[in-house]
Amino acid sequence: MICVLAGGVGAARLLTGLVQVVPPAEITVIANVGDDVELHGLHISPDLDTITYTLADQVDPDRGWGLRDETWQAMAMVGRYGGIDWFNLGDRDLGTHLYRTHRLAEGAPLSQVTAEIVAAWDLRLTLLPVTDESLRTRVTVVDPDAEREVGFQEWFVQRGHDVGVTGLRFVGADLARPAPGVLEALDQAEAVLIAPSNPLVSIAPLLAVDEVASAVRAGRDRTVAVSPLVAGAALKGPADRLMIDLGHEASVVGVARLYRELAATLVIDEADAHLGGAVQDEGMAPVVTRTVMTDPDVAAGLARAMLATAGVETCS
Amino acid sequence: MICVLAGGVGAARLLTGLVQVVPPAEITVIANVGDDVELHGLHISPDLDTITYTLADQVDPDRGWGLRDETWQAMAMVGRYGGIDWFNLGDRDLGTHLYRTHRLAEGAPLSQVTAEIVAAWDLRLTLLPVTDESLRTRVTVVDPDAEREVGFQEWFVQRGHDVGVTGLRFVGADLARPAPGVLEALDQAEAVLIAPSNPLVSIAPLLAVDEVASAVRAGRDRTVAVSPLVAGAALKGPADRLMIDLGHEASVVGVARLYRELAATLVIDEADAHLGGAVQDEGMAPVVTRTVMTDPDVAAGLARAMLATAGVETCS
Repeated sequence: MICVLAGGVGAARLLTGLVQVVPPAEITVIANVGDDVELHGLHISPDLDTITYTLADQVDPDRGWGLRDETWQAMAMVGRYGGIDWFNLGDRDLGTHLYRTHRLAEGAPLSQVTAEIVAAWDLRLTLLPVTDESLRTRVTVVDPDAEREVGFQEWFVQRGHDVGVTGLRFVGADLARPAPGVLEALDQAEAVLIAPSNPLVSIAPLLAVDEVASAVRAGRDRTVAVSPLVAGAALKGPADRLMIDLGHEASVVGVARLYRELAATLVIDEADAHLGGAVQDEGMAPVVTRTVMTDPDVAAGLARAMLATAGVETCS
Repeated sequence: MICVLAGGVGAARLLTGLVQVVPPAEITVIANVGDDVELHGLHISPDLDTITYTLADQVDPDRGWGLRDETWQAMAMVGRYGGIDWFNLGDRDLGTHLYRTHRLAEGAPLSQVTAEIVAAWDLRLTLLPVTDESLRTRVTVVDPDAEREVGFQEWFVQRGHDVGVTGLRFVGADLARPAPGVLEALDQAEAVLIAPSNPLVSIAPLLAVDEVASAVRAGRDRTVAVSPLVAGAALKGPADRLMIDLGHEASVVGVARLYRELAATLVIDEADAHLGGAVQDEGMAPVVTRTVMTDPDVAAGLARAMLATAGVETCS
């Protein structure tokens, strides 16, 4: 069994590689739900959906999120009424949220609903929300004059993450229990992979659940992280700026400082090869390879390199 | 001021005629919410929307409900997941439900949200739900072996109203207060029109609100109903079968027996001219005219005939 700690787009890309080198049935993904949001009465789980859509080859290739062959008729109507249209929900995508919301209202836990959605796309891997309970990332942003705490999506989408951040909270994490299967997957994994997701808002919410953090730390020797920063910059999203805003170094060294208690190994890009020694000094074994997943072959190579580090056999 | 008691499709057609013969700003429509349903977490108000879409010239001309230029991408996805897809919600239509659900969750009453939606379509009339509170029609149907009570839409859409009915309940009506403006409109109306809607499941829920029934009865002399049955049959929907199932005569005479305490006049179709005497015997003044609204001119003619009965001046 391989276990993957995952956010959204970066994790989804790594998974497209991983399923090429190990049988999907042996993969369990533990995904972030801190980005989840209730809008228009619907429960939206962006990271779960990005992973599902990507692996189902349904993701829009240009955006990297949402569905291909998407239309936007519902949102155009919401716009006509002056409703909330800053969080763009495509018509096909809405079908997923309608189904999820209906099942949750029936009392099904999110992990069960997620399994149903994954099965409907004929995916063989196991995709688990880190918890079935409410866990929401909230972001303290600097308005021109004062600090103000907003929901994750208000920061990320509505403000385009173009505002200074002074704090993060994972509301509900202290009470949240891991979803069924999460601790078992971490305990039994031959290797735990930390995907190239934002350490502070994609991976940190998973670790904000105490039992998850303990299980990951207990398996540190077989845990391999990949840096989401390449040459000091995020490939997508605000990870670099966010790390600086919150007092971290925006580099693989800064990433190593965040991950050193969780993972023995940090995979860094060839562009950062010169920082291997500094990563080592932080207590992580550096592995240098291509990490910019411009195509599925690179993703497969990255997955293979991560698994090799943990001594896991892969398909040829 | 003209006040109209309205269900869905038949009422919407009459209103397309009425707005041609009196200024829309002088029209208040009191609409049924007994058909409202919560699905996928969304609040759906079919009769309110049918009226709005029809008057906005957005209704699908073939179906008579829903929107023109509609797509069905969200429902196709719901179907993929095995979710509830018997209540077909188009993508554009979903935008209305998303907006309504969001505003209701914010605490806006349904009457306020309805006014916002009507304004977004540049309609000048006043459209009021009969109540802002929950009022739900439930239908006792005969399953092969036993009776069973289901929600209105389970009967109407899911079962295609193709099943015997032994009872109706309007749950919540006993506690429901008329929405703001409803009683004022009834009190101040020069004429009250009962649209050619199903008497038992479109008009009856309005009257199940005691204060509404009292106000309508108090204005009986200026109230004009139009029979939804022509030659013993409903033009659309199950009104004829439902009347028989529940012990009424499926004819303009049966309609007169349901409406005689509410309205002084019953407009009947030319096809039923021979039943004018029988309608008179039930205590209602019969008016014979064309009532099958095959085009907007017929609808205007019907509206004019109804208003003439009440002595209201109309545009030429």
